[in-house]
Amino acid sequence: MATEKYDFGMVGLGVMGRNFILNVVDNGFSAYGNDLDPEKVKALIDEGGDLDKVNASSDAKTFVDALSTPRKIMLLVPAGKIVDAVIESLIPLLDEGDIIIDGGNSFYTDTDRREAYLKQKGINFFGSGVSGGAKGARKGPSIMPGGSRKAYQHVKPIFEAVAAKYKGEPCVTYLGPKSAGNYVKMVHNGIEYSMMQLTSEIYDLLKKAGKLTNEELHQTYSKWNDGRLQSFLVEITADIFSQKDELTDGDLVDMILDKAKQKGTGKWTSQNAMDLGIPVPTIDIAVSMRQISALKSERIKADELYDRPTPSPIDKEELIENCEQALFFSFIMSYAQGMHQLSDASVEYGYELDLGEIAKIWRAGCIIRAALLADITEAYQNEPELENLLLSNSFVGKVQSTVGAARKVVAYGAANGIPLPGLFNALTYFDAYTSERLPLNVIQAQRDYFGSHTYERIDREGIFHTEWEED
Amino acid sequence: MATEKYDFGMVGLGVMGRNFILNVVDNGFSAYGNDLDPEKVKALIDEGGDLDKVNASSDAKTFVDALSTPRKIMLLVPAGKIVDAVIESLIPLLDEGDIIIDGGNSFYTDTDRREAYLKQKGINFFGSGVSGGAKGARKGPSIMPGGSRKAYQHVKPIFEAVAAKYKGEPCVTYLGPKSAGNYVKMVHNGIEYSMMQLTSEIYDLLKKAGKLTNEELHQTYSKWNDGRLQSFLVEITADIFSQKDELTDGDLVDMILDKAKQKGTGKWTSQNAMDLGIPVPTIDIAVSMRQISALKSERIKADELYDRPTPSPIDKEELIENCEQALFFSFIMSYAQGMHQLSDASVEYGYELDLGEIAKIWRAGCIIRAALLADITEAYQNEPELENLLLSNSFVGKVQSTVGAARKVVAYGAANGIPLPGLFNALTYFDAYTSERLPLNVIQAQRDYFGSHTYERIDREGIFHTEWEED
Repeated sequence: MATEKYDFGMVGLGVMGRNFILNVVDNGFSAYGNDLDPEKVKALIDEGGDLDKVNASSDAKTFVDALSTPRKIMLLVPAGKIVDAVIESLIPLLDEGDIIIDGGNSFYTDTDRREAYLKQKGINFFGSGVSGGAKGARKGPSIMPGGSRKAYQHVKPIFEAVAAKYKGEPCVTYLGPKSAGNYVKMVHNGIEYSMMQLTSEIYDLLKKAGKLTNEELHQTYSKWNDGRLQSFLVEITADIFSQKDELTDGDLVDMILDKAKQKGTGKWTSQNAMDLGIPVPTIDIAVSMRQISALKSERIKADELYDRPTPSPIDKEELIENCEQALFFSFIMSYAQGMHQLSDASVEYGYELDLGEIAKIWRAGCIIRAALLADITEAYQNEPELENLLLSNSFVGKVQSTVGAARKVVAYGAANGIPLPGLFNALTYFDAYTSERLPLNVIQAQRDYFGSHTYERIDREGIFHTEWEED
Repeated sequence: MATEKYDFGMVGLGVMGRNFILNVVDNGFSAYGNDLDPEKVKALIDEGGDLDKVNASSDAKTFVDALSTPRKIMLLVPAGKIVDAVIESLIPLLDEGDIIIDGGNSFYTDTDRREAYLKQKGINFFGSGVSGGAKGARKGPSIMPGGSRKAYQHVKPIFEAVAAKYKGEPCVTYLGPKSAGNYVKMVHNGIEYSMMQLTSEIYDLLKKAGKLTNEELHQTYSKWNDGRLQSFLVEITADIFSQKDELTDGDLVDMILDKAKQKGTGKWTSQNAMDLGIPVPTIDIAVSMRQISALKSERIKADELYDRPTPSPIDKEELIENCEQALFFSFIMSYAQGMHQLSDASVEYGYELDLGEIAKIWRAGCIIRAALLADITEAYQNEPELENLLLSNSFVGKVQSTVGAARKVVAYGAANGIPLPGLFNALTYFDAYTSERLPLNVIQAQRDYFGSHTYERIDREGIFHTEWEED
């Protein structure tokens, strides 16, 4: 029987919660788990071995009493009503100053509501995104905590110990008040949607136009992962191409149904960006593509009704080279859009975000970790007021030297009927954002013509309306 | 002094309200206006001339008492709190069975709330979108009413008289219960955003690549408006190119600032489509482009940092021909996406929408009226269960014969640095929607790899998970 109180508590002993606890224990802290499912409680105790270091119970009171104060209780349960239910069940058992950490993907307004509600009761609440999947939780995730800066000091030692390390620096930092942590994680996931879509499109192009085999795709993505495209998503995609299928003698990737599911964080990112007025088209289209993928039966019918051009012959090596550049270019556009949204949200919601610090804790542990994030960190550290990554002098060269290949790839896809929605929108975002003059003067004219909505002029201040003449 | 009661009441005597009243009066009904601004009250009375036919007052009681029962009171006031305030001020003055019609662009959930609230008080509430701008309100708008089918019978004679006519058929019909009318108008506006974006992009391309003068643009759009592209937006865009500037000796279109404003209905359409899981990428990108256009100062900085290719020489006549086809193709994609959203929303919200009837009342009066809508009406009348316009046999030929030009135009824009976001997304929507196989099998593999989210297979039923091997 353990005599000492435990340093850290975890509610929800699913794969994420169990792995996170074992990670905490590996780092010299003791932890106590809680789950209504006795199976999961037993599994954790068995895996933990030493009861002085890791213990668990299905009983909430036993769980809470076992923790040292101020209690640090993390929730890794499904977002939504369950989070509220767990909070309600804990409240009567907690003391003032205790800390509840929601490690799930809760919607940021829910976190604001919960934080305000618990503050009245003297309890500190942290919305704290955790990225890295099951393996990240076990070996070192990227953690994005938001809440009370003062209370964070109690959590800091544990989080910094368990977080992933980039060149020795922990991938966790206090991000800001209220829902800052959940919001940053939401946008992280939006960028993730975009990068996943891009890596899948490049696969499609290399396969359809370049006729690459899965083995060649594995080699190509592996090689890319040794260069400037080095990233978790490119790395695991290389692995995916070489995975054998246990049920047939083929490759697994060819047997997986092309209907992508989603849990909503990408959609939330797009919907919120629209409210803020910040364009994130490569994230928007990644959400749309998951939706189109779900319309499988309609796609099958439509495919039968329409002819598609046969991809024109193309030099394989040149295609691979162009794809590497186009993917690099498009990854930059994804990060640029996400960071742009964060910088606007920081002002809108009073998060006081430090974009350099955010890029810094994304360099390892999380799903969107990539070599590029070291450069992004530097860009924001050098220019904290940067409005958009594309305006950083350190990125002009990277973008200018790869946009040409992006143009070739997108033009080829358009001409040959290979849908490259993410690459399209990365390029069109770049072309529009870098255009001093856009044709929306015509849209303002149309709005004034039919709705008397007025317009501004390029040559003088003021608001103008014209009685437009019909032909 | 009028002895008879008036047939129709209008709260809000701005340009839309005043014009709508005069339209009602032109059609043989008497109408009474109400506005807190005495100036507007006087203006209407002066313009009306005969007090037996049109009268107005700033006093709500005088206004309500002047109307025959069941009272038919339309509100043409800004969406939001003002609508609620007007409703509250009317309630104590109304009798059971009276009808309030909100003619503004209220968000559909607000309309559901108001309809339920007023039903308790025995008052019928109609969310009723009105499209056609100031001129449409005066000469004949397209009207999209939703609410109680029974109560609609009282409004029907007036609405059918004032609505635009297409070959004698009035552009108004009962659409469905609750917020069906506002919802349909919201999606109408989303399609409108998309079509405005497309017409502006084609202008940009013809100007930059084809070097067309404003006069040639006027000629081109006018010619197009005599063909299958015949539509209100192409028609007024032709007018816009020939409008002279009163402040300089140039053309007005060149003097208008390229910062497009928005009132939110396009954004709502995109955000709601994401909730429904229906892809509407050409509407999404039209919203994003208005947002990018607003970032003028950032665009100016970015433009200075990056080089843009000089558009390669292109045969002018061939370009114009391809643009006509690409615009026709993209208009079809815009309607297809909007109708797809309506068909899904109809089930989700219980609107019981008749898509054929909706296309029918859009054929005249509204901003998105176009020759194409006669074909769309027919398609849905012949196949009421159509999941997507692209699945209609009557559209396969139209799409197949124009997609080639869309490919050429988009590929040219991509290669030459001319942003064509709407055309891009129309094409990528088509290519993705008509693809039996998409590369999202890789995304499902990635999700299972890092999050154990499982996947389905193409060769057997069930949910599968793999312990992915690292290289």
